[in-house]
Amino acid sequence: MWKYKLRPRFGDLDPLRHVNNCMLPIWFEGAQEPFYRHFNPDLDVSGPWPLIKAKITVDYVSQMGLDDIEIHSFVKKIGRSSITFYQEAWQKRKLGAKGETVFVHYDYELQKSVAIPEEIRKALEPHMVDPENPNLKTRSGRFSGL
Amino acid sequence: MWKYKLRPRFGDLDPLRHVNNCMLPIWFEGAQEPFYRHFNPDLDVSGPWPLIKAKITVDYVSQMGLDDIEIHSFVKKIGRSSITFYQEAWQKRKLGAKGETVFVHYDYELQKSVAIPEEIRKALEPHMVDPENPNLKTRSGRFSGL
Amino acid sequence: MWKYKLRPRFGDLDPLRHVNNCMLPIWFEGAQEPFYRHFNPDLDVSGPWPLIKAKITVDYVSQMGLDDIEIHSFVKKIGRSSITFYQEAWQKRKLGAKGETVFVHYDYELQKSVAIPEEIRKALEPHMVDPENPNLKTRSGRFSGL
Amino acid sequence: MWKYKLRPRFGDLDPLRHVNNCMLPIWFEGAQEPFYRHFNPDLDVSGPWPLIKAKITVDYVSQMGLDDIEIHSFVKKIGRSSITFYQEAWQKRKLGAKGETVFVHYDYELQKSVAIPEEIRKALEPHMVDPENPNLKTRSGRFSGL
Repeated sequence: MWKYKLRPRFGDLDPLRHVNNCMLPIWFEGAQEPFYRHFNPDLDVSGPWPLIKAKITVDYVSQMGLDDIEIHSFVKKIGRSSITFYQEAWQKRKLGAKGETVFVHYDYELQKSVAIPEEIRKALEPHMVDPENPNLKTRSGRFSGL
Repeated sequence: MWKYKLRPRFGDLDPLRHVNNCMLPIWFEGAQEPFYRHFNPDLDVSGPWPLIKAKITVDYVSQMGLDDIEIHSFVKKIGRSSITFYQEAWQKRKLGAKGETVFVHYDYELQKSVAIPEEIRKALEPHMVDPENPNLKTRSGRFSGL
Repeated sequence: MWKYKLRPRFGDLDPLRHVNNCMLPIWFEGAQEPFYRHFNPDLDVSGPWPLIKAKITVDYVSQMGLDDIEIHSFVKKIGRSSITFYQEAWQKRKLGAKGETVFVHYDYELQKSVAIPEEIRKALEPHMVDPENPNLKTRSGRFSGL
Repeated sequence: MWKYKLRPRFGDLDPLRHVNNCMLPIWFEGAQEPFYRHFNPDLDVSGPWPLIKAKITVDYVSQMGLDDIEIHSFVKKIGRSSITFYQEAWQKRKLGAKGETVFVHYDYELQKSVAIPEEIRKALEPHMVDPENPNLKTRSGRFSGL
């Protein structure tokens, strides 16, 4: 699991006086940075980027306000060339939202999806978790301690 | 179907030089305004708001750039108290992304979901469509003309 | 003068139930597109960009809500290598905000500011205006008709 | 001085592969939270808000990328009912941008600006600084240590 902390700003809230729903995909993207580094260690943005987002889903669980938010990020599934990412946003020990992102490992030169290298697959394993499991036990045997 | 036009700005694009994925939920929210008006005709933001977003999904179909974008919005399904909204983002006659939003009709005073009134249900029917249907024929018999 | 229309979305408003102050620089940037085209006709984002923003100023004049907004953009001053841009955001015939942006014409290869070519200078002249003038008469003699 | 740390996300960068200029007012707003608390200790967003932004200015000093950013915030000037706030964005020990915000202490019920109470004035003094001073010595005698 990767942890990412943030503090919402005043304008992240909307007239309902809760965090606007559109902030979640933005914060989830911010929290994906350490995952990106497995594919692009220096986060070099000057050349082609090896990951494409194919799909995102966000479930809004409870309303969030002006307090510290912690994003917990996991790898849920590693396919041949795609990876399902699972994330949760917590505020004051309460789950605010959870979401999934499907990434495709992509080669811009070949213009097609490419297999995820074995060494990246191995390196990602400690971050894998089964979100169906209430204890969020990672496959590597460690509890995520949510 | 409701149509909503927008022009991406320079900063809506990211280092990949395409529209950043996080812009889609934002634009889809903007395009939902005429739908909100069925529940809150004057878009009065000073009191409780009758709709809660429970879930969003976005499928990224093709990359978009600095050109006019048109969002097409449909009602996909009307349940007892929830509504599934379906939207597409088009640029240069190409589908860039499609997404769904599940709304819950909510009463803030009772703090629970409430049934969608029959008159709203009727008023929304002309905007219904079956996205599985390649011709996107609305249930009211009119083609959406995408 | 260039005109740019937009419709704020629900989440552009903050808990004060007015447009969040941070939206103005964003909208002003969106409205600068036709000006950019004088320097980069096809808005080609794949190479170096000929303009750098050196400074922005926004004056918040009156609160804005969920209604159509029109941005009016003018060239205020053309220096040797810099241009001062002046913009206004109108809603329901009321001035909501006004702002200035100082651009520098920049050559990324030489890594320095470069003189604004005479033909661009000429082409921009019809968009020039004196914002101190209550009638906003452009220098080319046409009224902006605000 | 107040410090606020943030990590830009991928989509905060634009096609120039640097932080988009519009992010600065957003980050500066986020960093103003401890200042707001002097006027609204619990950041209660359910009632009227005691501060209005009258004007912002941002000077873009150097380009920023995907690295930790630290915002330093100071009070520059306290008038009868207005306060000038001064902020700097630092990345890798380099000044990326600096900006000012003019706040007006406002009473929504009276619909007019009101004097800043003496106790708030006193409490803000340790955060005052003279930005013209290269050492950024605060008026209370402590160096800001930039």
